[in-house]
Amino acid sequence: MNYIEIIGFSAATLTTAAFLPQVYKTWKTKDVSGLSLPMLVMFFVGIFLWLVYGIYIKSPSMISANTITIVSAFLLMYFKMKYEKR
Amino acid sequence: MNYIEIIGFSAATLTTAAFLPQVYKTWKTKDVSGLSLPMLVMFFVGIFLWLVYGIYIKSPSMISANTITIVSAFLLMYFKMKYEKR
Repeated sequence: MNYIEIIGFSAATLTTAAFLPQVYKTWKTKDVSGLSLPMLVMFFVGIFLWLVYGIYIKSPSMISANTITIVSAFLLMYFKMKYEKR
Repeated sequence: MNYIEIIGFSAATLTTAAFLPQVYKTWKTKDVSGLSLPMLVMFFVGIFLWLVYGIYIKSPSMISANTITIVSAFLLMYFKMKYEKR
């Protein structure tokens, strides 16, 4: 692995890890009042496009980071829709 | 501008825009109780490393997105430190 991919993977680890506490907190508390569905959808589509970009430019760190983050974004959208009505 | 940079700039617009309501809300309400400083610092450092990565691989969309997002992340850290003690 070359030098720049080490920077990329460090970036990927930090930015994906920063989302996990939010996913955990929302799952545990079922409190979705502070989450905005339009924003989550925008974010999800944005991350999907970054994933397409990463695949196109063949960036291992971008592909890894965005694959993990798209799962986090999907879970937050799912929790928002599931718990909103209760 | 080539095809893949259009995808990149669409991704950049969506993921940076998804942060602005959080910055605005925190600025208006001064409510930083839901924000975690260690997470904000991790996120800030992560975005800084993505910016370095974007500059290195000469990606215009990654440079733009991460420059704007690093300002958002910095503002959230600043608000957290400024309003925490009040």
